[in-house]
Amino acid sequence: MPADAHDWHDLRVDGDRLWQRLEALGEIGAVHGPNGERGSARLALTDLDREGRDLVVSWMGDLGMDIAIDAIGNVVATRAGSDPAAAPVMVGSHIDTVRTGGRFDGNLGVLAGLEIVETISQHGLTTRRPIQVAFFTDEEGARFAPDMLGSLVYVGGLAVEEALDVIAADDGARLGDELTRIGYAGPTPVPAAGYPHAYAELHIEQGPILEDEGVTIGVVTGVQGISWTEVTVTGQSAHAGTTPMQLRHDAMAVAARIIHEVRLISGYLGSPQVATVGMLAVTPNLVNVVPSKVVFTIDLRNTEERRLKDAEAQVFAACHAFAGDEGCEITLRTLARFEPVEFDNDMIDLVESTAQRLGHTTKRMPSGAGHDAQMLARVCPTSMVFVPSVDGLSHNIAEYTGPDDVTAGANVLLQVVLDRAAD
Amino acid sequence: MPADAHDWHDLRVDGDRLWQRLEALGEIGAVHGPNGERGSARLALTDLDREGRDLVVSWMGDLGMDIAIDAIGNVVATRAGSDPAAAPVMVGSHIDTVRTGGRFDGNLGVLAGLEIVETISQHGLTTRRPIQVAFFTDEEGARFAPDMLGSLVYVGGLAVEEALDVIAADDGARLGDELTRIGYAGPTPVPAAGYPHAYAELHIEQGPILEDEGVTIGVVTGVQGISWTEVTVTGQSAHAGTTPMQLRHDAMAVAARIIHEVRLISGYLGSPQVATVGMLAVTPNLVNVVPSKVVFTIDLRNTEERRLKDAEAQVFAACHAFAGDEGCEITLRTLARFEPVEFDNDMIDLVESTAQRLGHTTKRMPSGAGHDAQMLARVCPTSMVFVPSVDGLSHNIAEYTGPDDVTAGANVLLQVVLDRAAD
Repeated sequence: MPADAHDWHDLRVDGDRLWQRLEALGEIGAVHGPNGERGSARLALTDLDREGRDLVVSWMGDLGMDIAIDAIGNVVATRAGSDPAAAPVMVGSHIDTVRTGGRFDGNLGVLAGLEIVETISQHGLTTRRPIQVAFFTDEEGARFAPDMLGSLVYVGGLAVEEALDVIAADDGARLGDELTRIGYAGPTPVPAAGYPHAYAELHIEQGPILEDEGVTIGVVTGVQGISWTEVTVTGQSAHAGTTPMQLRHDAMAVAARIIHEVRLISGYLGSPQVATVGMLAVTPNLVNVVPSKVVFTIDLRNTEERRLKDAEAQVFAACHAFAGDEGCEITLRTLARFEPVEFDNDMIDLVESTAQRLGHTTKRMPSGAGHDAQMLARVCPTSMVFVPSVDGLSHNIAEYTGPDDVTAGANVLLQVVLDRAAD
Repeated sequence: MPADAHDWHDLRVDGDRLWQRLEALGEIGAVHGPNGERGSARLALTDLDREGRDLVVSWMGDLGMDIAIDAIGNVVATRAGSDPAAAPVMVGSHIDTVRTGGRFDGNLGVLAGLEIVETISQHGLTTRRPIQVAFFTDEEGARFAPDMLGSLVYVGGLAVEEALDVIAADDGARLGDELTRIGYAGPTPVPAAGYPHAYAELHIEQGPILEDEGVTIGVVTGVQGISWTEVTVTGQSAHAGTTPMQLRHDAMAVAARIIHEVRLISGYLGSPQVATVGMLAVTPNLVNVVPSKVVFTIDLRNTEERRLKDAEAQVFAACHAFAGDEGCEITLRTLARFEPVEFDNDMIDLVESTAQRLGHTTKRMPSGAGHDAQMLARVCPTSMVFVPSVDGLSHNIAEYTGPDDVTAGANVLLQVVLDRAAD
C-alpha cells in the first residue's frame, strides 16, 4: 500500500541506531589521537576497506535489500517499490577514507541511507519508486587518482578498463588487481544500464561555515571545480658542499619556489580560490645531496570555471618559468579535472523547503569538496544535504559532527527521499 | 733496512692494480644509469657496507697488515715500521656511500692506501714509522647523522655510547645494533689510545674547479664549516577544498617559503656560501589534505665561521618568522655543526711541493665537502690531496675520475707518506 503524504511527513529516523552504525564502521581502521580523537583509516581497496565493505553489505542484507556489485566495485542495494517500471531514488556516498580520515566523511551518507530504509520498513511503508543505497569505490582518490573514481565510472565518465589500470600512489598496486583481491570485482556492468530518478547525498560540510554561522542544514547548490596536477621537476643531483650555487640544477629549489608562488597566486585571486600542495617526494632525499627530482601535487579549486582556469594558467606559467630559471626540466600531468557543478534547482528547493519544514536553520552554499553527487548530477536531478563539522575539520582524525546534527541531516534526507519516491 | 730518499723518490704505484681494486669494490652495491653511468650504493652499516668492508679487510689481510676494528667500526690496518716506538703515518678515508653514490668518493683514499702499502712492500722497503690505512664508519651521514661520525668518535669528539645510540634516518635502526648485526662492533677502544704522527687523505674533489682550470692536483688547505639543521613545521591537517586560505595552518606552505628563502639568502651572501635542502618528508602526504607536518633539512657551508654564523642567523630567523605568519609551530634541531678547519701548514706545503716535484699542476683550495681528514686534523698534522671530478659531479652515479688522475693522486700520496714515515 503506497504511503500517503500525511503519514510520511511525520516519519523520523532512529538517531541512536544510525549513531551506533557510525561507531561500528568507524572502529574498522580506527585511529586514535593523543587528545582523544577517534578517526579511521580505510584507504580504498585495502584489507580494511574490505572489512568496512563487508560490514555495510551485511547490514544491507539484514535489511532484505537486493545487492548489486559492479565491475568497479560500487555497491548498490535496492529496496523494491510498488511500481516495477519506476526508476529508483538513490542515496549514497562512500566508505573509503584518507589516511588521516574521520568517521563521518562518506560513512554518514551511506549509513543514513540504511537508516532511512530501516525506518521506512519498520513503519511498513511501500514507496512507489524503489529506494537505492549506494557506496562508490575510491571517492577520496587517496590511493588511486582521480578521486570520485567509482561514481565517475558509474555515470560513464571514465571507461572501466581505464579505471582498472590505475596504479596506486602508495604501493604501486593496480586498481583492478586490488579490487579482485578484496573480492569486490562484481558482475554488474558499468556504466549503469539505467540511472536514478533522483539522487540525494547527506554529507558533513568538511568546512567551518555552518558552525561559524550557527546553521544546522547546508543546502548544497553545487560543487567547486577541481584541478589536480602532478608536477615533476628534474634537475641534477650533486654534492651539497662542492657545487657552487650558480652551477646547480636543484629540483627542490624549483619546487619550493613554485609551491610558495601557488600560495601567493591563491592570495591574489582571493576567495573562493583555494590551493593546496599536499603531496611531495624528493629523490634521492639525502641531507647532503642536491635533489635530482621532486614530484608534487597541486590541488586548485574554485566555484567558477573561468576563475579556476585563470588560477591554472598562472600556476602553470610559474612552473615553466621557475624550472627554466634553474635549468631544470618540468612536466605537468593532470591527475583530475572537474568543472564546477550546479545542482538541479528543484532538488535544491526541495532540500531547503524540507529542512525548513522540519524546523532547521538553512544556508545555501557550494561544496568546497568533491563528492559522488557531482557525478550523479550528470545523469539525474541531484542535490546534497550538509551538516556542520566541528572546527571545520575533516580529513583529520579530529573530524566530528554531533548526534543532533547527524539525526537532523538524516531526517531531511528521509523526507527528501520519500518525496521523490512518491513522484 | 730503512729506505733512503734517493730510492723512494723514484717509487711509483701500480695504477692498474689500484684501478682494479676500485672496480672490484664499486661492483658491491653497483648502480647502473641509463647512459652507462656506473655508481655504487653502500649506505653505512647495511649488508652491502658489510660486503664492501669484508672485501677491503681481506685485501688488508693479503698485504700482511695487522687489522684492528674499534668499537664504532672504524678499521685500521698497520704495516710495521722499523722503530717500534714511533707513531704511525696514517692514510685513509671511508667506503660508505650516499644512496646515489659514485665509485671514487672515499673508496679512492682507502684503496690508494692499500696500493701504497703494496708498492712499498713489493720494493722491500721498511719505513721508520709504521704506515696505517684506515676506513672510518659512516662518513657520509646518509643513514646516521652526523656525517664523519666514525672519525669524530676516533678523535674523541663524540662519546662512543652516544654514537651507538644514533637512529637511522631511513629505517629507524639503532647504529650500535646495525654495527653488531654486520659484525663490525670491534674490541679496540675509542677514542684511539694514541694518534698518528701525520694523516694524509687522497680524495676526489667532488666539485668542478680542478677540471675547469685544467689542474691535476688540488692542495687542500682546509674544509668548509658545515651546519646541518632539521626543521620540523607543525600545522593542522584540513580538507583541501573546504578550508578557506586564511584559516589554514599549512606546514607545506611554511616549508616552501623557508626553502625558497634559503636559496635567496645564499644568493645575498654570495660565494663561497652554499645552501641545500636535500631531504623533506610530508605528513600525511595526500593530494587533498593540507599537510599537518613537514620535516626537512638545511645544509649550510662556508669557509669562514663568521659568515656561516651569519647565514644560520638569517635562515633561522626566517624559519621562526614564516611559521609565525601561518600560525604553525616550528622546531629546529642541529644534526651536525662543524667549524671551518685549517690544515697544518707544513703538511700543505709538503703536498704542494711533492705534487710539483712529480710534475703536476697544483692549486691550493679549500674543500667544499666534509672529510674524515678534518677530524684527524684535531689530533695530528693533516692535509689532503684532491684529484679532478669529471663535470664536478659527486654523490651522483655519474661521478668519475680518470685513471691518469687517480694514479697521479696516489703517487703524490705515496711520496707524502714516505716523507712523513721517515720523519
